[in-house]
Parts: sequence; C-alpha cells; structure tokens
Amino acid sequence: MHCAPAYSRPVDHIGGGEWAAIERIRALLPSPPANEIWIGDDAAAVAPPPAGPLLLAADLVVEGVHVDLALVGLDDLGWKAISVNVSDMAAMGGRPLHALVCVAGPPETDLGLLYTGIAAACQEYRCAVVGGDLSNAERLTVAVAVTGECPGGRPVLRSGARPGDYLVVTGGLGRSAAGLAALLHAATADGADGATGGAAAVAAGAEANIDAHRRPRARVSEGMVAAATGATAMIDVSDGMAMDVRHLAEASGVGVDLSTVPLDPFGSVTEEQALFGGEDYELLFATPDVDAVLDAFATEGLRAPIVIGRCTADPAQRRLRGGPLPEGGWEHRWAPAPR
Amino acid sequence: MHCAPAYSRPVDHIGGGEWAAIERIRALLPSPPANEIWIGDDAAAVAPPPAGPLLLAADLVVEGVHVDLALVGLDDLGWKAISVNVSDMAAMGGRPLHALVCVAGPPETDLGLLYTGIAAACQEYRCAVVGGDLSNAERLTVAVAVTGECPGGRPVLRSGARPGDYLVVTGGLGRSAAGLAALLHAATADGADGATGGAAAVAAGAEANIDAHRRPRARVSEGMVAAATGATAMIDVSDGMAMDVRHLAEASGVGVDLSTVPLDPFGSVTEEQALFGGEDYELLFATPDVDAVLDAFATEGLRAPIVIGRCTADPAQRRLRGGPLPEGGWEHRWAPAPR
Repeated sequence: MHCAPAYSRPVDHIGGGEWAAIERIRALLPSPPANEIWIGDDAAAVAPPPAGPLLLAADLVVEGVHVDLALVGLDDLGWKAISVNVSDMAAMGGRPLHALVCVAGPPETDLGLLYTGIAAACQEYRCAVVGGDLSNAERLTVAVAVTGECPGGRPVLRSGARPGDYLVVTGGLGRSAAGLAALLHAATADGADGATGGAAAVAAGAEANIDAHRRPRARVSEGMVAAATGATAMIDVSDGMAMDVRHLAEASGVGVDLSTVPLDPFGSVTEEQALFGGEDYELLFATPDVDAVLDAFATEGLRAPIVIGRCTADPAQRRLRGGPLPEGGWEHRWAPAPR
Repeated sequence: MHCAPAYSRPVDHIGGGEWAAIERIRALLPSPPANEIWIGDDAAAVAPPPAGPLLLAADLVVEGVHVDLALVGLDDLGWKAISVNVSDMAAMGGRPLHALVCVAGPPETDLGLLYTGIAAACQEYRCAVVGGDLSNAERLTVAVAVTGECPGGRPVLRSGARPGDYLVVTGGLGRSAAGLAALLHAATADGADGATGGAAAVAAGAEANIDAHRRPRARVSEGMVAAATGATAMIDVSDGMAMDVRHLAEASGVGVDLSTVPLDPFGSVTEEQALFGGEDYELLFATPDVDAVLDAFATEGLRAPIVIGRCTADPAQRRLRGGPLPEGGWEHRWAPAPR
C-alpha cells in the first residue's frame, strides 16, 4: 500500500498514523503466497490469469451518494465496494482475482470497521486485496479496482444478444430497494418518536430485504454457468431492470418483448422497486438455449433463473406485457446535483 | 466505464449526463485494438503480460490534500494522478499497461480538462485507459489503478538491498518542492497586490521548477535499466529523500551512509527541498555494481544517475556526511487533520 505522494500528508493521522493503519489493515487480510508481493511495496506483483483475457474494472462508492451511513454501517459500505466490482466480473462470465482498495476519508474514519466488511466480501468471493492507498478527505470515498479471469476463455459482452434470444435473470428483483425503503421508514419513525428504536420500527419480515440492501451478493457462479451455456450478452442489474434491459438491448441493437417483471418471491417487493430500484446485482443475460441454461443451473445447485422475455428484431421495440416498457430508475435521494 | 450502482445517481448531471460524459471522455482517449474491450461494458478485457508477473498499484489524488487547484490546473491533476501510479510501476522495474480511472467530483467539474491531462500522461507512458467510474462528490478525488509488466521477469522490491550496495538516484531532487514554493510565493504576491499577475510574480528561472511540480515525470526507462543491471532494491522518491531512504533501508534491514544530497543542478533548489519536499519521482535504488549501472544508463542515452552513498551492515545506522540523516518530510499545508 503505497503512500500517495504529498506535500501535505494528513493520512498520518488516520487511525494513529498511516503505517500503523496499514499494519492494522494487513492483520485483517490474508497474507500472500510466497511467490507474490501484496501490500507494502510500491506495487503488488501477482500471477496473471493462466489463460484467456485479463478482466479489469473499477467502481466508486461515495458516502452520501451511494451509501447513507445513517442507514448502513461502514462495514456494509466496505462489503458493497467489493461486491459491486465483483459483480462487474460476474457480468462478463468471469471471477475476481485481485482487488486494489483506495480509501479517502476523514481522519476519524474507523478503518478497522470498513476493512472488516472489505475482508468479509473478499473472503466470500475469494478475491485478494493486494494493494491500494489511504488519504484524508472531507467525505468518505472508497474506490476499488479488481482484476479477474474468464474461465470460459471469452468474456460475455453486453452487445452480443440476437433476435430470438431469451432474456433471463438469475433471481427475483426489488429486494434491495425494499430494504432501503424499510430502513428509511424506520429512520422516519425514529424521528417522529424518539423513544422508538430503529430496529423495532422495521416492519416484520423486512430484515431479509435490509440484508439484501446492506450486503448485496455478486452472482459469480451464475455468471460463469451462463457464459458456459452460451449466453450471448450479459449485464448486472445495478440500475433496475427497466434501465439495464435497455442498456443490454441498446448495446446489442435488438428489441425486447418482456412477459414479466421477476419480483423477489419472498421479499414483499413492489413492481416499481424491481423495475427501478436497482442494486439487486442479479445478472440479466440473453441466451438462445434456455433449456441448457435451466439444466446447467440445476446441475450446479444454483437457484433456477427466470425467463422474462425475448429479444426481437426491431431495435426500437421496448415492450412489457404488450405495452411500453416503463422508463426510469433509482431514487434521487442524496445530494441531488444542480442542473 | 460502468455506472456505479446507486439509488441516487447525481452523476447523470456531470457534464450534461453520465453517458454523454463517457462519450466525450472516450473521444479524448485512444480506441482499443480489435481483440480487446475497453470502456463501455461491465469490465474491460485485455491481454495479460506475455510473461512474468502482473504488477498492480493504485493511488489517490485528492483536491485540497495532494493538489491545490488554485495553484495548478485540472489537467495537471489528471497528469499527476497517472504519473504517480506509473512511478509505482517504474519503482518495481516495470512499465505500465492499463489504467482504470475513478473520478468523484462536483457536477461542475470540467471532465474534458481533467481527461486532457490524463490522456497526455497516458500517451507519454504508453498506458491505455481501459475503464473506470464517475460519481458526484463534494470535492474532487481521482483514484487511479494501473497494471504493468516486468520486462526483466522479476520485480525489484524495496527489501533486497545488502550491506555494501551503492545507493543511486536517477536525478537531482528538490525541483517539485521549489516549484511549489514559487507558486505559493506568486499567489502571496497576488494577494498583496491585486494588480500583479501570478505569472509576473514568478521569479525568473522558476518556470522549469513549476513544470516539475505540475507535470512530474515517472522514470520508466531508468527503472527498467536499473532492474536489468541488478538493482537489489528500489523505491520512487515521492516523500523526499530523507524519508524514502529510510523506507528502503528499513525494508531491507540495512544501514545507510550517505555522502551527498543530490540537488537538482539546474533548479536553484535548497537542500531542505531535496531532503524533505518529495514528489520528484526520481528513483532511488541499491546496486552492487555501480559501473554497470553508469555504463547502461549512458548506452541507453539516459541522464547519468547519481551515487549518494552506500548501504551498511548496522540496520540502525542512518548517516549523512558523517552526521545523522535528518528526519522529516513534506509540508502540512492543506487540511491538517485534528489529532
């Protein structure tokens, strides 16, 4: 973990000194194998993928923009920063190998709590944290970059769907948005009655939705099986189904005719949450052979994916149950920017 | 360039829409070869290094912490964000391959100007920008991650120096700190006399120092030649010579006996600036065979490196010209954090 070059070096004060902070972080993370260099030198040196392309992606998580720390923990933010990047690997049919984690935040930031979530996610996804950087900043920003490999040899792009392909999602949608709604409801109830605990104000049954919001799961195995069974295009549902279907269709130059919105069956979610909420991190993919997909998911012990419609030849067509696919997405809740 | 998942999506407003911003950014950057995927899908897919390890590093540049935008331009900030990462590759004896650029900033941020500097640096270092992310944030933060390769097959770590090795730097130091001092002086003069232009207030001859501060150069060729001639340890001088000599000596478990502080001969710099200023991005390395180093640098047409001393067997020894090597570094100028 290289120190950012600086005439100012306020990171000396994060957690009692940058070097002390790095040592605490290292203690929370696995150590490298003997033939690799991870945290502590100018750069990490690792084994590249044994075959096929190297996948690379990077995503930011900004406090107050992507995460409200009044509603979720610093450890959840750390988990999410890893998961959203791993989801990008999954959406190519790949799996993650290495993560670089850059943290800019106020000196009082609890790096131990943040990295507990980062370490848990990296353990879940078998992804090594091999480097990064620390800096002071007024608000917390976590920028993660990940490498990955394609076991299938070729990445699945957004742009390969063809007319006639089935559109499939790896699971029901809307749970993260429903979890956020429950957290916001509880926070409002707390505000109206100071004696009411947030946990008590959470509606019965909402805990699983809140967990889906706090700790989204990237669908790595599902993405690899989709790729292996001939998925022609794939994307992760981070912006809501209505938006991500459009992204895939536009990149592929196809129309879409959808028969259903796959609500999470256990989540008490609304169609609006599934269409526009986003952050479910299920995968949406196109395939010509849906039977092969269903068989392979069953063989691998994965949840049955859900067919939501077909791709069509008219690139202007966006249909849902015979009507127009609604437009829109996400809630502009924090820090709306001036137009 | 994947959109960060968000229930809030203020990046829609950066530069008139995130997708429009990404298209403008793509127009400033080279396009991928036919067999690679760069900006625009969930992840990039690129060729891994043909042999040897994959190098990985990431560094943050934060407005108000690492860069004062009252003194240097947004394009300079972009250049620096790339250069500091490339310098990490150089300090391993490697060269950069790919960059991922994450930008969090206010909606009015001039992404075109920022990416002009990023593109110029990437052209200089032959490094491809293959992805990244955009988000709103109150203050500008640029987090860059880079991949690289080791033409020599093995990275040069900080930890390999042995007693008796010579310590060598690739060029005179202090110029960046002198440039910053000139910029601060000019800004103060402006403040004292509103009619005085900043450029007019810059002392004659300071322009080259200011350029060294605004556009630091990573020493990629020098690092590869040092590695090829048997450098046992290497680090880039980002924190000032006094600090970075300590980093190398501590990692290697050796003492140091220094005979000189290599002031930039053309820069009108002070010894304090060379010892403590940092941000020169020259390379400091240890080698048992200094004649081979000097010959190889001459053969490659590189500036002659400067021998500053030797490594010794006493790991507690830190000597300069027979006295103790002074401690300290960098100026705490912006945003000092509360203790």
